[in-house]
Amino acid sequence: MFREQIKVLDCTIRDGGLINNHDFDTRFVREVYKAVSAAGVDYMEIGYKNSKKLFSPNEFGKWKFCDDADIHEVIDGIPSQTKISVMVDVDRVDVDDILPRKESPVHMIRVASYVKDVDKAIYLVNQFADKGYETTINLMAISRALDNELNECLHQLEEECKAHVIYIVDSNGALYQETTEFLVKKAKTILKSKEVGIHAHNNQQLAFGNTIEAIIHNANYVDATVYGLGRAAGNCPLELILGFLKNPKFDIRPVLDLISKEFIPLREKMEWGYIIPYAIAGILDEHPRAAIALRNSDEKENYRKFYESLVGEVDE
Amino acid sequence: MFREQIKVLDCTIRDGGLINNHDFDTRFVREVYKAVSAAGVDYMEIGYKNSKKLFSPNEFGKWKFCDDADIHEVIDGIPSQTKISVMVDVDRVDVDDILPRKESPVHMIRVASYVKDVDKAIYLVNQFADKGYETTINLMAISRALDNELNECLHQLEEECKAHVIYIVDSNGALYQETTEFLVKKAKTILKSKEVGIHAHNNQQLAFGNTIEAIIHNANYVDATVYGLGRAAGNCPLELILGFLKNPKFDIRPVLDLISKEFIPLREKMEWGYIIPYAIAGILDEHPRAAIALRNSDEKENYRKFYESLVGEVDE
Repeated sequence: MFREQIKVLDCTIRDGGLINNHDFDTRFVREVYKAVSAAGVDYMEIGYKNSKKLFSPNEFGKWKFCDDADIHEVIDGIPSQTKISVMVDVDRVDVDDILPRKESPVHMIRVASYVKDVDKAIYLVNQFADKGYETTINLMAISRALDNELNECLHQLEEECKAHVIYIVDSNGALYQETTEFLVKKAKTILKSKEVGIHAHNNQQLAFGNTIEAIIHNANYVDATVYGLGRAAGNCPLELILGFLKNPKFDIRPVLDLISKEFIPLREKMEWGYIIPYAIAGILDEHPRAAIALRNSDEKENYRKFYESLVGEVDE
Repeated sequence: MFREQIKVLDCTIRDGGLINNHDFDTRFVREVYKAVSAAGVDYMEIGYKNSKKLFSPNEFGKWKFCDDADIHEVIDGIPSQTKISVMVDVDRVDVDDILPRKESPVHMIRVASYVKDVDKAIYLVNQFADKGYETTINLMAISRALDNELNECLHQLEEECKAHVIYIVDSNGALYQETTEFLVKKAKTILKSKEVGIHAHNNQQLAFGNTIEAIIHNANYVDATVYGLGRAAGNCPLELILGFLKNPKFDIRPVLDLISKEFIPLREKMEWGYIIPYAIAGILDEHPRAAIALRNSDEKENYRKFYESLVGEVDE
């Protein structure tokens, strides 16, 4: 697949940070930046921009806050065309922390929002756009969105929102190709002036397949992470999407080196990927939090009991 | 997805046997048979029916030969509707070893064949059909088949072959959804009197996605293995396909138990799954044998060198 407009965003450090409280050391983050830059990846998302009034820097690593000085420590001295992205959550960011684009190493700000919070997200993202940033809104837990509410949300985004890209985010790892196709086609139909993106989770080993499906139906922004690193089941593996895309700007080899040298050892210390409780959560379209709790308990391999506990939660 | 005609074939022991010379012990195979029977899986493929004139029982486990007595040791005493399947390779079977269906615990015989060997496969499979077996032909390495040769092969199968099902086999784990769709549609168009099946490999984490794609385009026979066990990257995970299919005859829970109790410990001793050299082989549409050799060498994590060795093999 080649389409010049396709942009790949690496969110290894941002999504991986959800496993370790955003506490990757600077050396490691520099290695990732070096590799994704050499691979020709368009964006690298480095973390969240959270308010220090809400979260203490004593309890979280620096990529929960993404101070400009910390970003400079990662990127300075590395030749790169890769743009830097940060994510903000509705209600967790202090807008005054965001300098004008020209005074910051950040190029893009992505606002993560549930469909129900889209008004807040639009209010936020428009301010970031006015400060000169590229902007996106990432619609989380899309597999749980009711069709009428999603339609209204998308119309609002088209009419009121300055973000250039709207992402479909399969937080629960529950989408199959048919629903991915349905959602991307719907978004492309309503969002006439915007690009559509996809952020897939790998609970059912479908993150890459659903990303391809979204690309087939004209999503041009795709999220991926090195070796699929990310909370719980993780994400679409960057190395696979680079293998699939035929755009000559991409080179898979620096990413292969990075996996050999950094991610194989890391996987011994951090858990992510295809693990049955996350698969069960995806099959049942549930948030992974119960499965994450199970993996930290001494019942971590009791899959049947976990499955029955989730199935049993259904209320009339 | 619910379609009454869909049949699931578990080939855990057969494809997994390619890792350990078909040397699973009877207790383990019984546990798998017990679980897939309780799960409502339609078929279980237990191994290969190879001639003992060609392969020595001193060098291979019993599931390379699948003697009827060994099959009885697995299945006797377990309540089950699951039919037993064995695979044969062209040129490796002694037809005289195959008793008439009524004298054997085997219900189905599947003949694995490259497109170029289809005449031999038809000659074989028709004899098994005449002995009373359900039969299939599994077209291996389909990603390398030239379109004109595949067309001729499919027409021949439709006209000359008694097999009820023709499988598309992605031996290299190289197919994406678009090609899966193309191949299944082509097969369904030409094979008017037969069912189409899919056997996917998981090099690029697409075994499940491609299996769904094949189902969408009316393939009714799908292969899967418990926890994706199988040579190299392994196969479509049975637990995921059971989670996807809504046919009420299926129950995922016995398979979840089996993974907890047998496959998590097994994975400590045997390697399969998403491993970068297999992903590279899939991306480059190569047989996994070079990647398997790499994994048994002390360069097992040198992905860049492996990638370059495969890319460098291209000749004019």
